[in-house]
Amino acid sequence: MVDKSTINITFPNGVVKKNEKGITGIEIAQGISPRLAREVLSISVGDELWDLMRPIQKDTYVKLHKWEEEEGRHAFWHSSAHLMAEAVEALYPGVKFGIGPAIENGFYYDIDFMHYPPLSENDLSGIEHKMKELINQKNGYVRQEISKKDAFIYFNKKHDEYKLELIEELEDGSITFYKQGKFIDLCRGPHIPNTSYIKAFKITALAGAYWRGNENNKQLTRLYGISFPKQKMLNDYLILLEEAKKRDHRKLGKEMELFTFSSSVGQGLPLWLPKGAELRKRLEGFLIKIQKDFGYKQVITPHIGSTTLYKTSGHYDKYGEDSYQPIKTPNRGEEYILKPMNCPHHCEIYKSKPHSYRDLPIRLAEFGTVYRYEQSGELHGLTRVRGFTQDDAHIFCTTYQLKEEFNKVIDIILLIFKALDFKDYAIQISLKDKSTPEKYIGSPENWENAENAIIEIAEERNLKSKIVEGEAAFYGPKMDFMVKDALGRKWQLGTIQVDYNLPEKFDLTYIDADNNRVRPIMIHRAPFGSMERFIALLLEHTAGKFPLWLVPEQVVVIPISEKFNTFAVEISKLLNNNKIYTFVDTRNERTGKKIRDNELKKIPYLLVVGQKEKQNGTVSVRKQGMKKQLGEMKIDAFIEIFKSELNKVTQI
Amino acid sequence: MVDKSTINITFPNGVVKKNEKGITGIEIAQGISPRLAREVLSISVGDELWDLMRPIQKDTYVKLHKWEEEEGRHAFWHSSAHLMAEAVEALYPGVKFGIGPAIENGFYYDIDFMHYPPLSENDLSGIEHKMKELINQKNGYVRQEISKKDAFIYFNKKHDEYKLELIEELEDGSITFYKQGKFIDLCRGPHIPNTSYIKAFKITALAGAYWRGNENNKQLTRLYGISFPKQKMLNDYLILLEEAKKRDHRKLGKEMELFTFSSSVGQGLPLWLPKGAELRKRLEGFLIKIQKDFGYKQVITPHIGSTTLYKTSGHYDKYGEDSYQPIKTPNRGEEYILKPMNCPHHCEIYKSKPHSYRDLPIRLAEFGTVYRYEQSGELHGLTRVRGFTQDDAHIFCTTYQLKEEFNKVIDIILLIFKALDFKDYAIQISLKDKSTPEKYIGSPENWENAENAIIEIAEERNLKSKIVEGEAAFYGPKMDFMVKDALGRKWQLGTIQVDYNLPEKFDLTYIDADNNRVRPIMIHRAPFGSMERFIALLLEHTAGKFPLWLVPEQVVVIPISEKFNTFAVEISKLLNNNKIYTFVDTRNERTGKKIRDNELKKIPYLLVVGQKEKQNGTVSVRKQGMKKQLGEMKIDAFIEIFKSELNKVTQI
Repeated sequence: MVDKSTINITFPNGVVKKNEKGITGIEIAQGISPRLAREVLSISVGDELWDLMRPIQKDTYVKLHKWEEEEGRHAFWHSSAHLMAEAVEALYPGVKFGIGPAIENGFYYDIDFMHYPPLSENDLSGIEHKMKELINQKNGYVRQEISKKDAFIYFNKKHDEYKLELIEELEDGSITFYKQGKFIDLCRGPHIPNTSYIKAFKITALAGAYWRGNENNKQLTRLYGISFPKQKMLNDYLILLEEAKKRDHRKLGKEMELFTFSSSVGQGLPLWLPKGAELRKRLEGFLIKIQKDFGYKQVITPHIGSTTLYKTSGHYDKYGEDSYQPIKTPNRGEEYILKPMNCPHHCEIYKSKPHSYRDLPIRLAEFGTVYRYEQSGELHGLTRVRGFTQDDAHIFCTTYQLKEEFNKVIDIILLIFKALDFKDYAIQISLKDKSTPEKYIGSPENWENAENAIIEIAEERNLKSKIVEGEAAFYGPKMDFMVKDALGRKWQLGTIQVDYNLPEKFDLTYIDADNNRVRPIMIHRAPFGSMERFIALLLEHTAGKFPLWLVPEQVVVIPISEKFNTFAVEISKLLNNNKIYTFVDTRNERTGKKIRDNELKKIPYLLVVGQKEKQNGTVSVRKQGMKKQLGEMKIDAFIEIFKSELNKVTQI
Repeated sequence: MVDKSTINITFPNGVVKKNEKGITGIEIAQGISPRLAREVLSISVGDELWDLMRPIQKDTYVKLHKWEEEEGRHAFWHSSAHLMAEAVEALYPGVKFGIGPAIENGFYYDIDFMHYPPLSENDLSGIEHKMKELINQKNGYVRQEISKKDAFIYFNKKHDEYKLELIEELEDGSITFYKQGKFIDLCRGPHIPNTSYIKAFKITALAGAYWRGNENNKQLTRLYGISFPKQKMLNDYLILLEEAKKRDHRKLGKEMELFTFSSSVGQGLPLWLPKGAELRKRLEGFLIKIQKDFGYKQVITPHIGSTTLYKTSGHYDKYGEDSYQPIKTPNRGEEYILKPMNCPHHCEIYKSKPHSYRDLPIRLAEFGTVYRYEQSGELHGLTRVRGFTQDDAHIFCTTYQLKEEFNKVIDIILLIFKALDFKDYAIQISLKDKSTPEKYIGSPENWENAENAIIEIAEERNLKSKIVEGEAAFYGPKMDFMVKDALGRKWQLGTIQVDYNLPEKFDLTYIDADNNRVRPIMIHRAPFGSMERFIALLLEHTAGKFPLWLVPEQVVVIPISEKFNTFAVEISKLLNNNKIYTFVDTRNERTGKKIRDNELKKIPYLLVVGQKEKQNGTVSVRKQGMKKQLGEMKIDAFIEIFKSELNKVTQI
């Protein structure tokens, strides 16, 4: 006989414990250790995320989540969003609420302040004060299952059309409310046990946001916040935030005159200013050189393609109403699409002549500018744009070459990480979901071959990597690279994807040694991801202090008066001929000011020249950030110093 | 009293002669010399082009046109088109005629062959035979003024809907027919006196052409022809045509694997293959280096711009139904245009910060890819495309800097001509039409200043140039460069244009020394014109034998057997590190075949390596096109030879 009053709880380590039916997450934690009970924030029960206070009624497996896990932080921040909403409702009765989720760092709530005057920064401390008060009330977050009808009735009475719109889309029987103190919200949960968990918090920003991100809807007020279980964590976070603000690539990009935006050209379409274009050129040249050594060939393709092309590739179906719309022509029925990716064009190049197995692998590379329509609310500096340049390449190879080619792509990515001093990176390997083989295209043998190859590579190279089943693209497994920047923030960077789909769609073939027509495999890869995103990362990672070889202007020559302009220009020419990027500051300003200005512009080397230098054929060298000057030296000596510093960083 | 039976005829040299009223062009020529009367083909009477047989009734100025002038050749070729039409009508009664103009080289006629089976190449000799017969009849080309009504009646009876459509658009009182033999055509003229002038001719091609170039209309048969007043001229022309065919850039581009087209990507949108992309990169690098020395800054801008941008620039009005249509977005009212030119984007960059007179001139350069919808019938290889990359730049300067900046642009263009060995070029200076000042924008002083500056420059530099009044753009005067290729054909290349319009439209300003806001002047310039067109020219000019520094693959290493592949790869790496573009031919073929294949591919240097070379650390050098081998030498010695050859051609 099975004991009906006990249930089996299975833990992540495989241990199964008998427990009383109705036991809660917090009780399970208590049973392990009081310390754990203090730290735990939410629980996975089977495949669902639950509150710690919700009774478990049947056999299941569980996992407790602390702050260190996203599941724990999200319950904490989501609860903080409810707390903030409660405070707002208390201070501004009658306001209406949109959505209030946890995000990567903290939480927000979109609120319609109705007839109230627009909220200002000054109002935030009042809300924070109210939140403090509510925290002290230690109100529990109480879950309640509710019928769709009753949910409608409740929010109808509140005249909250936003919540009503959301309820409309939910299935009856799956709807829950959460209540803490006087505040009731439509919410799936989970939440932390009560408001007193929130030891430290801050409302960090105030912004506008269209309801459901659609510009045709009403603009709501978005309040961003952050919260922590310890005051010190908030303090550290705010310092980090301050540092991040200083390093914001939008701010640095403007100060360093790298790029700009123009509303007449269009939102999210960067204009690269001379120094930014030079920086891009340097990065592209760096990658072209590496790729040449690895046997890549650069190609150039147009920025549009006929809809036929994207129907063949299958992308057309995904190119819906939320995209840039097709370009019509005077010729009826003819239609082009602004290129959202380069692969179909590269497939056409592959197809432009027949191939033998002896030609493979073929590695086609392009700095291909693509266009994708992002909602204007999503646009952010260079990290979310509508036009960007991928450091794209497609490798066409045989099954037998797949592992070696994949390995070589990793070589390139790691070379780049080393050259740019990204020491902290993580790798994710995405495989198919074995339980739904019908979702994937390509033969099972090919998949197994590719997945095994990738896993073997990671093992053989000792790469710290996480394997996730079910995250592969429908067309093949992939490997993604994430790097941590100087502030410890994660950036999704390079990706390597195996593709069995496009070779099929484009009917790509080669003739093998036995004279059979065989399909090649395609590898998509972009080590930087995009030039825009990568430069944003570089700016924030280095706070604008690029490695010497990337600095658009490496040396400035400062004549101490107009009399020495000609001598200064001569020196600048000599240096430029030595591929040292040099300019002359001929402004009619005092030398002291010129030195200060150029130090602010982060020019690595300042060469001051006057009578003495002209006579001796020398320069007086100041190095950025060094208290002590390097002093007067022959120009050749300076070139030596410069080049040896350059070699130090580019030796990869 | 004025003598009513005589008129005054003024000649180009200013001489005025009294002549009998009713004198004809041919009689005027006769009066000068019998030889001239034999050579003259048409006559300008006042502002009109006339037949030589048409009586002149009043005082006027005249100019006689021989073969050497376009006006003479065009009358000749246009008459030849009528002759061909007469022959076709005689052989294929009931066919209908579209238009039949003279073109740059020869003439064509578009014909609807109705119920007749499609014409083939084999039918052409029959038509030529008939033409010969008609020439021998010495039929005169007779002009007849006709009312619109009678013109309608005539072509209505012939059921020729094409001519009827053309008549529809003509003004009554201005309509003329021309008749020779049995053939009557609607035609403005002028024509040569009779068919016997045509001493030599050939129908050169047979093609399809939509009526009025519109793909929705019926496709007619286009017959191309060429004709000459002397048989030797035809012979020479046909030899030239044969040579031109061999040098056709479409043929060479395919053989040399430089570029390709794909109907799925779209007509007129070149895909640059690896070697073509490398060639473009080399040319771009060459220009970037020169431009850097001249103080240009490279920028990068997106390939679309909002319609607002083009409304500001004024281009939007010209962007009609015959263009790529605007790109709509999910955001109602938002619209983008595929960039047809780069200037508006560069104006936005200029505007992105305030400028002082000290900042000027600002020279923004971009290899900017633009898109313009050409009718599919107009597309031709790389010379008429729908997407092309301009070697564009815009100079923003003060009035006082205009002359110097203009001069410097000429320096760049002449540097390029020298480096690429274009010795034969012509210059056209286009000024405004002084009689219609209202057609131009910008102050008269500015125009005078700019026009004088350009003329002075041409004089000071001793540039062979033609000044044409009335050919300036509405926004400013310009200078165009035409080069002659190795076959003597003219190519429109670089252009330099002064622009007073866009600075006005975009409200561009700088602060002058007296603290006033002042408009800069803009100079548009593109020395190559476009990369596509320039590469087409280079291919046809050099027959694919590029100067060494432009050859995508400069050296091939040929191991005599697989055993020496590793050694060959080592050598190739060493050469590549010395910036000598080298690859290894590792195909499993006999050495003789490898040598032949690579000579066909026009690789300049072939290095054969085997046991002896491996032992001695040498290579056996063969130079393309040389009977005698350069023989075995140390690899360093080869690098020396290569570099000295390279320096010879790039010394500019």
